Amino acid sequence: MPLPRLGVLGGGQLSKMTASAAANFGCEVVVIEREADFPANSVDAHSIVGDWNDPVNLLKLAELVDVMTLENEFVSTEAMAVLVDRGVKIWPTPDTMRLVRDKFRQKTEFSKAGLEVARFAEASTKDAVLEFGFPCVLKRRFGGYDGKGNATIRDASELDAAWNQLDGDSGGLYVEDFCDFDRELAIIVTRGIDGKAVRYPVVETINKDHICHVTKAPADVPDHFKKEVADIAERAVAAIGGVGSFGLETFLTRDGRILVNEIAPRVHNTGHYTIEACVCSQFENHVRAVLGWPLGSTELVAPAAVMVNLLGDAAGSGAPKGMEQALAVPGAHIHIYGKTVSRPGRKMGHITALGKTVDEALSVASEAADRITFGD
Amino acid sequence: MPLPRLGVLGGGQLSKMTASAAANFGCEVVVIEREADFPANSVDAHSIVGDWNDPVNLLKLAELVDVMTLENEFVSTEAMAVLVDRGVKIWPTPDTMRLVRDKFRQKTEFSKAGLEVARFAEASTKDAVLEFGFPCVLKRRFGGYDGKGNATIRDASELDAAWNQLDGDSGGLYVEDFCDFDRELAIIVTRGIDGKAVRYPVVETINKDHICHVTKAPADVPDHFKKEVADIAERAVAAIGGVGSFGLETFLTRDGRILVNEIAPRVHNTGHYTIEACVCSQFENHVRAVLGWPLGSTELVAPAAVMVNLLGDAAGSGAPKGMEQALAVPGAHIHIYGKTVSRPGRKMGHITALGKTVDEALSVASEAADRITFGD
Repeated sequence: MPLPRLGVLGGGQLSKMTASAAANFGCEVVVIEREADFPANSVDAHSIVGDWNDPVNLLKLAELVDVMTLENEFVSTEAMAVLVDRGVKIWPTPDTMRLVRDKFRQKTEFSKAGLEVARFAEASTKDAVLEFGFPCVLKRRFGGYDGKGNATIRDASELDAAWNQLDGDSGGLYVEDFCDFDRELAIIVTRGIDGKAVRYPVVETINKDHICHVTKAPADVPDHFKKEVADIAERAVAAIGGVGSFGLETFLTRDGRILVNEIAPRVHNTGHYTIEACVCSQFENHVRAVLGWPLGSTELVAPAAVMVNLLGDAAGSGAPKGMEQALAVPGAHIHIYGKTVSRPGRKMGHITALGKTVDEALSVASEAADRITFGD
Repeated sequence: MPLPRLGVLGGGQLSKMTASAAANFGCEVVVIEREADFPANSVDAHSIVGDWNDPVNLLKLAELVDVMTLENEFVSTEAMAVLVDRGVKIWPTPDTMRLVRDKFRQKTEFSKAGLEVARFAEASTKDAVLEFGFPCVLKRRFGGYDGKGNATIRDASELDAAWNQLDGDSGGLYVEDFCDFDRELAIIVTRGIDGKAVRYPVVETINKDHICHVTKAPADVPDHFKKEVADIAERAVAAIGGVGSFGLETFLTRDGRILVNEIAPRVHNTGHYTIEACVCSQFENHVRAVLGWPLGSTELVAPAAVMVNLLGDAAGSGAPKGMEQALAVPGAHIHIYGKTVSRPGRKMGHITALGKTVDEALSVASEAADRITFGD
């Protein structure tokens, strides 16, 4: 029996790091992405360049792979059905994706499962928002990421602008309580086809302009919070029948409650540190999970680890400047995704450092990150 | 300035692991290999399938890469000249390769540099061997690896058989003292273009049928031996003007001397453990070195690490059997090279485990390795 061939829908950095883990096991990886020269192109065995919602491409893909996974949640259910019909296993399943992709439905699902979320409601009209009350966050049900598709509204005077910005009249918005949190805590949970799950350390994420900027592992909060987050995450992934690695983001509120913010049905930026910092990375465990293999240890190999994202500074080439200077920082693990083009705020790479303490790791990772720029 | 594009001559497991490290930096990797479906094929951006000594292929390669490196020492100097003429930098240089490829010349070079080697001599005739004395080892000057091209001769009665086995009449043999060693100690040294070198921990290698079977890091010998091996290795790499990662194998004799056995002008099997066990692997440091970048830390991230090779058990498929069972061993890092075909003794993969002690790591790596078979 040859090893299963793995397909990945989407060719960005998440796909690249997943493909890399699979290649390590000797698995053949096929990636489908819309344009050539995508990050995962450098580490897959075959690429299909084309729209992943085009049945012709998907039939081609179905010939080449046994198991399929996704690097983003924006795939049509119809597209996935084409693959399922051809006997390709897809993890996470189309059912899981349907539950997660619609963030209103995702919140409803978590609420039904007894997990605490911020108060939320549908927002089909502006009146619904007024009735909901302020401060609140107006959000798109579909397609939002990295703060795109969200607008915070402090009072009624800001409603019109937010409504127009998110094109509320075309529908698909919901509203939730603005959460005055103390910290954002995140965790990766990998769940196998058999329902057994492993939990990574709970980390603190520091966002900048709604984009994950720094991940500190482990989070500097009392153990009972960590246990609570990990328990919630495992229940959340089970509630949506998840298989693979999932990133759960939560708020630790000022009054000491853990609220589920959202789940990503895939490997997640807050888990990139696991490549160097854990026995088995979120990517390796994702591959193990979707192939039906036993999951690996999520233990830290050092007392602390910090990841700092490398974001595009300006438009221009995707090649980093300052690479040599950054490589001169001892202990900085530099990942450059290989995107051809930089844009301000675009995720271009990341740096991880291990340390005896989070502060030590942060100082190494930050020093190296400060030396790299992208664009112009 | 885009990142330099890296070419690798040869597409086996060493090339695969090197390409993987380069891809992590966002560097484009092009591999040339004689037949399709080679291990590195899964992690390079482009492949050229064809003979690497064919100028047509090399000219194609020269268009695609800025810097070139090699995964084996069996490349013709003429082929390398084609690339150099086109402005491609090659590390290690053709000069280094010439010094190393001929093992007689290599030994001579080390001897001249004041490094202790077993007594050796040319062996153009059987009389020369008789005069040299027994026990001795008859060796091919060119092309030997993993014990292929060597024959141990205990006394004169065994000479004819050994001579015929190695086809001595066609020339190209040399002879050296049979070394009654206590242990084999090896080390990876990475040397930059600027001549600065970093040293990995000294390891003990256990060979089986002349093939590296187990690597134990660090070696269980007094510190002064480790320092001596590391000093020798750094001098040896400097003596041949080496740039990149080099594996040096030495004998620790029963009377406490360190003799240089041989050097591999490339990443080496005895350094595979560095992927998980060191801050920066031999592969990453090789990439850093040949691209002219600062070298990374070679420190162990755990007190001990052990690597066990996975060798082909029989002829047959290159897909592993027992993969799931092996993955169930906690802490076993499993590398499968993705070779299409297994042969008895062929290197098909390896397993690394970290531990508090070498024994602990050995027991994990061996348990996982015992569960995997290749062939039939």
